[in-house]
Amino acid sequence: MNDDRPQQSVGLVETCIARIPLPPEGLTLEGGGMLPELQVAYESYGTLSPARDNVVVVCHALSGDSHVAGTHSPEDKHPGWWDDMVGPGKGLDTTRFFVICANVLGGCKGTTGPSSIDPRTGRPYGSHFPAITVGDIVRVQRLLLAHLGIETVYAAVGGSFGGMQVLEWGIRHSDFVQRCICIASAASLSTQALAFDIVGREVIVSDPAWAAGDYYGTGRQPDDGLAAARMIGHITYLSPEIMTRKFGRRKRDLVPQERFSTRFEVESYLQYQGEKFVERFDSNSYLHITHAMDTYDLAEQHGDLRSAFKDVKARFLVVALSSDWLFPPEQSLDIATALVQSGKSVSYCLIKAPYGHDAFLVDVDQLARMIATFLASAQTDASEGLDRPNRPGTAGSNARNPPGAGGPPPVGTRQDDALIADMIEPRARVLDLGCGDGDLLARLAATRGITGLGLDIDVEHLINTVGKGMDVFQGDIDEGLGFIPDQSYDYVILSQTLQVVRKPRRVLQEMLRVARAGIVSIPNFANWMNRAHLGFTGRMPKSDAIPFEWYDTPNIHLATFRDFMGLCQADGIRVERIVPLGDAAISRALVKAGLWNLGAERILVRITRA
Amino acid sequence: MNDDRPQQSVGLVETCIARIPLPPEGLTLEGGGMLPELQVAYESYGTLSPARDNVVVVCHALSGDSHVAGTHSPEDKHPGWWDDMVGPGKGLDTTRFFVICANVLGGCKGTTGPSSIDPRTGRPYGSHFPAITVGDIVRVQRLLLAHLGIETVYAAVGGSFGGMQVLEWGIRHSDFVQRCICIASAASLSTQALAFDIVGREVIVSDPAWAAGDYYGTGRQPDDGLAAARMIGHITYLSPEIMTRKFGRRKRDLVPQERFSTRFEVESYLQYQGEKFVERFDSNSYLHITHAMDTYDLAEQHGDLRSAFKDVKARFLVVALSSDWLFPPEQSLDIATALVQSGKSVSYCLIKAPYGHDAFLVDVDQLARMIATFLASAQTDASEGLDRPNRPGTAGSNARNPPGAGGPPPVGTRQDDALIADMIEPRARVLDLGCGDGDLLARLAATRGITGLGLDIDVEHLINTVGKGMDVFQGDIDEGLGFIPDQSYDYVILSQTLQVVRKPRRVLQEMLRVARAGIVSIPNFANWMNRAHLGFTGRMPKSDAIPFEWYDTPNIHLATFRDFMGLCQADGIRVERIVPLGDAAISRALVKAGLWNLGAERILVRITRA
Repeated sequence: MNDDRPQQSVGLVETCIARIPLPPEGLTLEGGGMLPELQVAYESYGTLSPARDNVVVVCHALSGDSHVAGTHSPEDKHPGWWDDMVGPGKGLDTTRFFVICANVLGGCKGTTGPSSIDPRTGRPYGSHFPAITVGDIVRVQRLLLAHLGIETVYAAVGGSFGGMQVLEWGIRHSDFVQRCICIASAASLSTQALAFDIVGREVIVSDPAWAAGDYYGTGRQPDDGLAAARMIGHITYLSPEIMTRKFGRRKRDLVPQERFSTRFEVESYLQYQGEKFVERFDSNSYLHITHAMDTYDLAEQHGDLRSAFKDVKARFLVVALSSDWLFPPEQSLDIATALVQSGKSVSYCLIKAPYGHDAFLVDVDQLARMIATFLASAQTDASEGLDRPNRPGTAGSNARNPPGAGGPPPVGTRQDDALIADMIEPRARVLDLGCGDGDLLARLAATRGITGLGLDIDVEHLINTVGKGMDVFQGDIDEGLGFIPDQSYDYVILSQTLQVVRKPRRVLQEMLRVARAGIVSIPNFANWMNRAHLGFTGRMPKSDAIPFEWYDTPNIHLATFRDFMGLCQADGIRVERIVPLGDAAISRALVKAGLWNLGAERILVRITRA
Repeated sequence: MNDDRPQQSVGLVETCIARIPLPPEGLTLEGGGMLPELQVAYESYGTLSPARDNVVVVCHALSGDSHVAGTHSPEDKHPGWWDDMVGPGKGLDTTRFFVICANVLGGCKGTTGPSSIDPRTGRPYGSHFPAITVGDIVRVQRLLLAHLGIETVYAAVGGSFGGMQVLEWGIRHSDFVQRCICIASAASLSTQALAFDIVGREVIVSDPAWAAGDYYGTGRQPDDGLAAARMIGHITYLSPEIMTRKFGRRKRDLVPQERFSTRFEVESYLQYQGEKFVERFDSNSYLHITHAMDTYDLAEQHGDLRSAFKDVKARFLVVALSSDWLFPPEQSLDIATALVQSGKSVSYCLIKAPYGHDAFLVDVDQLARMIATFLASAQTDASEGLDRPNRPGTAGSNARNPPGAGGPPPVGTRQDDALIADMIEPRARVLDLGCGDGDLLARLAATRGITGLGLDIDVEHLINTVGKGMDVFQGDIDEGLGFIPDQSYDYVILSQTLQVVRKPRRVLQEMLRVARAGIVSIPNFANWMNRAHLGFTGRMPKSDAIPFEWYDTPNIHLATFRDFMGLCQADGIRVERIVPLGDAAISRALVKAGLWNLGAERILVRITRA
């Protein structure tokens, strides 16, 4: 390592070329084609452990290559494409992991592709290069690892088209890979994304210089077509907001030379991107790789998405980016949902990222922390995670935080948690709605051996929950639990949250759809202190259990214990067990006297379908 | 009219050609160019009134033409591009209005454009056709009208690029046009939309057959380029949701002939759109019109958008489409906001339309009703509108409806409205938040001569309010009043709505920012019936004023009269006048005894900044 460089860089690196020995019949591809030889360009960072068990495979996107991090020479000003993510102390920590990335099959950066020499003819493959699939690309990655003597992958990580490769790793090489991190990706392209690729290919093959793919050595190549395809791509990689912020309608000073050119900065940006791309990329590779991406369709391949994941053994982290419209968050959620529905271990996280699809490349702070936490946690079990302090830098109160609500945590939390734990039998499957930092789940895992899933709205809470080795989904209870199949949990917990949701009735119904029993705690508006407060002062009650002013309370659906019981009765919900809770001496005395609706400050109930 | 056709069609129509006489120096264009001759193709429907005061000018979009409605022959199966909107009894009712549409300058459907013969050379203009602007296009429309003896326009209507022309009508010909309807448009293209046009032009001018614009008579034309530009366009005209619904990832049965073609239906759709367009459109026209659209920028032209509208006299209706990402709703809202800020008469409506930008062409039901109502109302004054029954088909309760809330209307509404009217002096400027069907505004207009603006969330309410001759904005109080300048109203009314908003405190502050005084009515939670209910039954109160169950109430921030007064005091709000209201005899007696917080079921207050 060059000591002058910042410590976090992997420093000077070089691309290696592996010639993978093939059987005499060559490499048969999924589309029926055959390659007589296979060469793979790759880079690696960090040190392979003696047990060879610290391998992280990075899968690159459409126009990426094996040069992920570091620089190729001391003068090189352009580090690899994911330098922010890969390096000592970074999201993929090279002091711990051996990170490796191979240029994809069909590419043009050293791995066998259409511009490679076909040994049978001594000329570039050109139009004779066979069709490839994502499955082929991942198989070549595995062949490379085998060639290097690596027989297990700690994690496969990739964004965009790289995320599709990660899915293939998890599905087709399930005994080989332990963790999968799929970022801003999809189990198949959306119709809109497909449409943009279709136009991109159209403009390339319409370029007369393409010559049906055999342009090598003609002195011409379909630069206009490839540049236009790249311009379309670059529009889709950015969110409209970022496009406006970066360029708006600002104009350059110079007068455009070409008729119908404009002075808009966004025009010179797109033209620059097109020109730069043409210098470094091969049109046939672009056609082959986008074709592989467009035809990738896990649901079609396996009947449906859930079936696609049935043999998955890896723990999954699925990350979506809020402003990504090329691979919209719903598509990541579909992946995560199908994994949940297949009973797999998966966390899903939607990162607020204004940059659009490119955010996974350029705005990696939170993503890197999530990835590092996921990779670190996966080696600990739940009990180890329990009392580990939160990472510095995460918004780290240990209090439960109702989704959508700010403000101080309700009182009695730890006491309530202990009572909740008492209601749950060992080894149960538990869903915790509004799981906060995952403390309750982690405690239940440690003391009761439960398996569980948390739901929370806050990414920092998610990171902390993942850090405790628990699975967690980002989501808003108000948007429903539609992704969870009927009766897939034994218990679902809703602690001090019912009163902040928009549709409490629907939430209760959903809870008893997804789980055998629900455990709910709510503040009791009919507590004697509240009655006295309203009755004598004529003002809205405030108390330890409902500590907010009327105008900024998150408690938008307050109810009394009796109201709650009334709703349960009306909706066919059986209240199996009731624990009236109170901190004040009078409250406790009233509860003891059986006057629960008057005495209880909070109530904790276990409910089932009647 | 052909009697076999449905009654609503305008029937058989034909395109007329007007040769507009020009001065000897020709038509000088804004960009400095000159045209030696001017021919305009147009169609008209309906009958010009003797007073020539029923003219509705339709402005067409990028690839449209003058053939708006009806058919060109009995065998013609393809009616004009807005046949759903124009005809007897339709949104633009041809039994009432004389509807006229001209093909734009620079077009290729009969109006002078790059493919027209340049009389100076006897050959098509080609590369010699001068640059045009939206201003030029609208000036030519006005020249056509003058040529036809028309000196006033009842309304100018247009969507997309047509909406830009409508803006020019309102700004540049302010004495000429009485009403402007601007649909799914913008005062300048967004950066993203600009970027797509830039790529579209790039692929056309990169097509070798373009020949720098002089391809006429060469036997070749840049079909590949134009088709690809059109394919890009078609992606942007549809919402991603509709693309998925229409095509998904469905495949055709046939095997694609071309390498890198796919079997996806969306590919054949896009190719078909490209091929069809090439048959009917001229590449140079596409370049010129998109260039005019891209360089149109009202804010740049006038310093800022507000200044652009300073001389507007027409009443505006600005309509946005919810799923339109090419001309996103924010851009329509910017137009409407700038008009409000310039003190102009404007209504703004966001129509829920899943179809994307194309919705104004293909999903016109609600849009047509809004347009018809706006055109009809504009001739009545507010008092006439007052007792007119709602149009059949509109969801027409006269009750006020808090934004975001369902359920029955609160009691006492009409009584409260009368008391509110008492608090407002004649000729005041009034903003009504949650205006429902506009009854209160219309009554205030009729009885107090106020001018006003309503705000509501429900499009059907908006249609009814517009029908009463009042201006109205679609909006959610929770999203703020940011579009309204400080102190632009005398009164702002918030009737039975404060308790349903998410941030009551911020709403009160906003109210007193935009208006001199606020008039607020809220239910009083401390009313004796509520206290007794909670105190004795231990259940959440329900009453006439708060008639909902705890679990589905829209009243998420209930307060007592005293609480409300407390907040006002804390926030420097002066409560100028208080009207405690009660329906029950005991309530009225308690109020009379001065026990307002105990007696009042509702309170009505007038507030100002202390």
